[in-house]
This record gives sequence, structure tokens and C-alpha cells, in this order.
Amino acid sequence: MNIKSFYPPRRILMGPGPSDISPEVLASLSRPVIGHLDPLFVGMMDEVKSLLQYAFQTKNEFTIALSAPGSAGMEACFVNLVEAGDKVIVCRNGVFGDRMLQNVTRIGAEAVVVDSTWGRAVEVDKVEQALIENPDAKFVAFVHAETSTGAVSDAKALCSLAQRHDCLTIVDAVTSLGGIELKVDDWGIDAIYSGSQKCLSCVPGLSPISFSPKAVNVIKERKTVIQSWFLDQSLVMSYWSGDGKRTYHHTAPVNSLYGLHESLVQLQNEGLENRIARHKEQHEALAKGLDKLGIKFIVPEDERLPQLNAIYIPEGADDAKVRNYLLNKYNLEIGAGLGDLAGKAWRIGLMGYAARSENVTLCLAALEDALNQ
Amino acid sequence: MNIKSFYPPRRILMGPGPSDISPEVLASLSRPVIGHLDPLFVGMMDEVKSLLQYAFQTKNEFTIALSAPGSAGMEACFVNLVEAGDKVIVCRNGVFGDRMLQNVTRIGAEAVVVDSTWGRAVEVDKVEQALIENPDAKFVAFVHAETSTGAVSDAKALCSLAQRHDCLTIVDAVTSLGGIELKVDDWGIDAIYSGSQKCLSCVPGLSPISFSPKAVNVIKERKTVIQSWFLDQSLVMSYWSGDGKRTYHHTAPVNSLYGLHESLVQLQNEGLENRIARHKEQHEALAKGLDKLGIKFIVPEDERLPQLNAIYIPEGADDAKVRNYLLNKYNLEIGAGLGDLAGKAWRIGLMGYAARSENVTLCLAALEDALNQ
Repeated sequence: MNIKSFYPPRRILMGPGPSDISPEVLASLSRPVIGHLDPLFVGMMDEVKSLLQYAFQTKNEFTIALSAPGSAGMEACFVNLVEAGDKVIVCRNGVFGDRMLQNVTRIGAEAVVVDSTWGRAVEVDKVEQALIENPDAKFVAFVHAETSTGAVSDAKALCSLAQRHDCLTIVDAVTSLGGIELKVDDWGIDAIYSGSQKCLSCVPGLSPISFSPKAVNVIKERKTVIQSWFLDQSLVMSYWSGDGKRTYHHTAPVNSLYGLHESLVQLQNEGLENRIARHKEQHEALAKGLDKLGIKFIVPEDERLPQLNAIYIPEGADDAKVRNYLLNKYNLEIGAGLGDLAGKAWRIGLMGYAARSENVTLCLAALEDALNQ
Repeated sequence: MNIKSFYPPRRILMGPGPSDISPEVLASLSRPVIGHLDPLFVGMMDEVKSLLQYAFQTKNEFTIALSAPGSAGMEACFVNLVEAGDKVIVCRNGVFGDRMLQNVTRIGAEAVVVDSTWGRAVEVDKVEQALIENPDAKFVAFVHAETSTGAVSDAKALCSLAQRHDCLTIVDAVTSLGGIELKVDDWGIDAIYSGSQKCLSCVPGLSPISFSPKAVNVIKERKTVIQSWFLDQSLVMSYWSGDGKRTYHHTAPVNSLYGLHESLVQLQNEGLENRIARHKEQHEALAKGLDKLGIKFIVPEDERLPQLNAIYIPEGADDAKVRNYLLNKYNLEIGAGLGDLAGKAWRIGLMGYAARSENVTLCLAALEDALNQ
């Protein structure tokens, strides 16, 4: 065995994530490692907390970056809040709604599934019906921005509905955070998780999460022990506490957190509203170009995510061949379809640092070239 | 809010981890992000697998880096193998044996705890007695190298004992992997987990794990669904499979894996035996110097880990003051005591890249200076 160092090429990442990341964020990863209990590191974690509160638009004290990917963030929300026997309304309109269901089932909780069409928003009426039929439901869980289909759901309406029925909300914001409007406090979201590698344009591996005081209370008043030790947020709270006394839980992924800190500083400097406007603007340019190429979107215009553009593979085009051509000739990555859309769709991400004119123009020209081959 | 970029100082990390990492590993983190389904990345993951097989001294097909810290690696071993109602012999001689117990309890399995003195090896006789008294036990779980006390246990003897009683073994090798002799296949270890940030000298955040074919079979023949979706290794297996067909599970922490790959290439180039010898050599130099300073080890010589030196805080010395002095004057981090040893011990790590003459000499001189203050 004689394995050499690995030198990846510079790809342009316009898939469903990881997204392109800025040179500054990339460089921040190589800053010297310091101890996870070093006072300077504790101070940096406090800043990450403040920056995440800004990104989430929340004052929630419990706002942290979980030391694992978004799917662990999802599980953390479910296993901390939901107990065996609890009833959860699970909205499913893509792969990640289905994953929520699997989380609920593994807890031994009861799921009431509200299915909406893949590629469409969650139907608020159907959720209301389910809430009326299940007055004992405790939670409503839904995906704000379905990464598998590119559809956005009306998080504000769904949260308001849940509140009227005395339910807490668990929201997947993996692809929405930093890409579209998201107001945790104004909308009254109780538990939310995201990923570092989407519109925040950081490396993959971390999951920003935030719990409302109401959610924290539910955790404190649980009757049963949380099934996961690693994801037990009652143990993690004191690790991230700002009181200067840090209780050891696990070793934080120090350098990945440098990257998240830097990417959040960039978000702060750009401003959340400008970031959101930039995503919209680049999306419109892309949509215009795709239209010229005769390529159709899967999602109707008013339910479309600017940062994740799911499109039908044009007739006659070979899915894998086109994506490989883009990757090999242009170092350009676009995403394949997932779940029900595998083989039928491509997903073009315009997330964070990827949402720039040069990328949109290249992507359109390269796609045209590939389809002509 | 106007938060600036974070520039950490260069610390010399001689605590219980994260350990010092080499400039090459640090630099590898800033290589361009590529997609986690990119063929080049899949190829790199295959190399990580081969390199980990070398580090673990195993041919186990299921040998991967879990996308989360060592404590998640621990949980992955327990939740995948152990089912509710199973009986597990848990050896406890420090903080991490106790954490194993918490994992067993949260599964709803039955733990038989075998306590040994903190700062000493697990007592093989006691474990044998527990196995005789519990013929229905299915697993023996123990920590090879207790990070909280600096004691090494006789993993070979414990595994051989477990086999004679038809038990599978679950072994914590967080601090042992790459630091002392560890032979997964020869000793017949069934499930093992480690951490990236100890003797492998990579950044924290990843957990190398390996399951024997027997352990994989136990997972396949489970009667109950694994309680964790994120840690369900039956789902992860196809993500790491070398057959070219990768099933999406979660987004791998791409850049952290660059770091792990590079650190494992360094291990391969140095050679496992040389690496182990270097740890021993540097430990002996440190021990000699500590003896001159009149500082006593917690662990008797024949049960001592070279890579983690737990010592009694000398009488009259102020725990926090000395550690802060070292950190502020010399940028040198040593570790505090943990659990029962909090306030009583310091832990000096000589892990991976930290195990060098310049570090040992500086540490001894700086400690002498600090104690004179």
C-alpha cells in the first residue's frame, strides 16, 4: 500500500450541496487548532451563537451548531422533543419529509402523515384537516425548503396553524437558512435545524439548531430519558452555555467551526436581506436562461426555491452522461434527482457563494454545450 | 453586532486532545471542496478505508470514518449491536467506561458493571467472574486506553476471555489508535471506535469505526429497528461501499476527511510500529523529567499509557493558575483532570504530532517555571 496525498480539483459546486465556498472560508479551515476548552475557543463559540441567532432571526438562548451533519440535526430535534407515544403530524412532500417520518417511527411515537405532491408546497389545508382530526397531536413537523424537489412551503402559515392547535413545530431549514426569508421568532418556530453546507456556504459537517424556550421546557419536563446520549441536548446545553463554565460533553470539531464562524461573519457583513436578494436575482437570471433552452421547472413559479432549481431532464438527454460531461469538461457539478425524481430531474443549486453571475452564465452555456453533444 | 474573523494563536496542544497536528494535515483542510458524490471523492473515501484498515490492523470490510466525534462512534457501536433486553458486561475504570454504561442503559439493555479502580487497568479476573455469573451476557465492552486516567487495559486478554464466553467485544480505542499496539483481527475485536483528534493527529470531528464480519451479521439479524437513523450503520454501509454505487445517506464532512486522509497517509509513511515506538520514547523522556521535578504518575508504570500522562498536581500548586500560566506564557495546553480526578490531576498528552522532543523539553521547562511562580 502506498497511498499519496489527495489533491482535489477546483470544482464549481452547483448541486444540492455542498455548495461553493468562498476563498476566505476555505482559508479559515487551516488556522491553527486550539483546544476545545481554550478560553479563546469558548469566546468564538459564543460568537457563533450570536451569528446563528442573527441568521435564524431569533433570540433563542439555545442556538448552537451541532457537531454533526444536518441529518443528525434533524434527529436531535425529534429525539429531544418527541417521546414514545406522542402524536406527530408529519408533512411529506419529498425525501426529507419521509426522513422525518422515519425519525418519528424510531422513537416509538405515532406519526400522522400528511402527503402533498412531490415538487409542490405542503398543503396547509390538509394539515389543518389532520389537526382537526387529531386533537391530541403534540407536534407539526415539516420541511421549509425541500432539497429533493426545490419546493418551498409556507412556514409562516404552517406555524401559525400549529399554534392555533397547541402544537409545537419542528422545521427543516437545511436548504432555506440564509437563502430565503426565515424568521424563527416572528413565525413562532419551536425547533429548527439546518446544515452548514448550503446557503451558509461553509464546509459540510455541522448542523445549526435552535430551540424556543417552549421547546427547551418540553425537554426539561420529559418523562423518559432521551434515547441518544450524543444528541441529548440537555447535556449539550452546558457545553455551549455562555456562563464561562463549560461542562465537557464531546470534543467540538474545532476547525469546521472556524469555517462556520467565518461564513457567518460573511453573512453578517453582506446582510441577510442582501443575501436573500442575491439568491433571488441569480435565480431569475438562471430561470430566464433555462427557459431559452426550453428546459422546464418541476415546481410552479410561486412555490419555487431560488437556491435550488429542480428541472426536468430534457427528452433525449442522458442523465449521467450530461452530468459527467459538465464535471469533466467544466469542473461543474449539478445534482441528480433524488427519490421519486431520480433519473427524471436535475437540481441546480445557487447556494451562498455559488449564487454569482459568473456561475449562472457558465452553467447555462455549459448545459447548452452538453445538450448539443 | 459587528463580529470579526477569528484568528486563533498557535498553541502547542499537549492535553488529552485535540492533539497537535502537522502543517501538512492543517494545510490539507483548505483544499477545494468537491461534491460528496464526486467520483474523485468516492475514490478518496476508499483510500481512507484502506488506510484505516492498516491503522486498526484489520481486514474488516466495514471500516469507515463516522461523520461525527468519538462519542457518536461509541454510540454507533452500541445502538447498532445491542438490542433492548440484551445483557452487556461494562467495564468501568474511568469516565468513558461510565459513558458506555449510559449508552447501554439508554438502549434499554441490561448492564452488568465491573468496576475497577480509576487510574488502573480493567481487572481481567473480575470480568471473568462476571462472565461466569452471567452466562447469558452477549457483549463485553471496555475502554482500551482510558483518556480520563491514562491507564491502558489488556485488550488482548479481555477479548480472548470474551470469546471463550461467546461474547462479542465493543472496544473504545479513542486514545489508543496509532499510539500503542492495537490489533483488531489478531485480538478478535468485534466493534471498535476511535477519534480523529488523538494519536492520528487530525482535527476533531470524525470517528473511525470498524465492525468484524460477526458484528455485521449481528446487525443484519437484529429483531428491532436501530433507534438512531443517523447512526444506523446498515444505511451507512452502502454509502461507504466500494462497489461504485453509492447510496445517499448524509453529506460527508468533505474537508475534515481530507484532513483524516492526509493524517493517515502520514501514519502509513511513518509506519505504525515507528509511530508506536516514537510515542514510547517521548513518554520515557517526559517521565524522566517529571521524576526530576518530583511529580508522581497516577497510573503504575506497567499500566501507563505513553500518549496520555496523568500526574498528580503537586501539593501547593494551584490547578487552574498553573494551566493558565502555561497557556498564556507559552501557548502550551495541558489537560485538567476529569471526573473523579478533577482538581487532583493534570493530563499531559503526547499524541501523534505532539510526541516530539521539542515539545517534551518545552513542557518540562515550562512546568518547572510555572511551579516556581
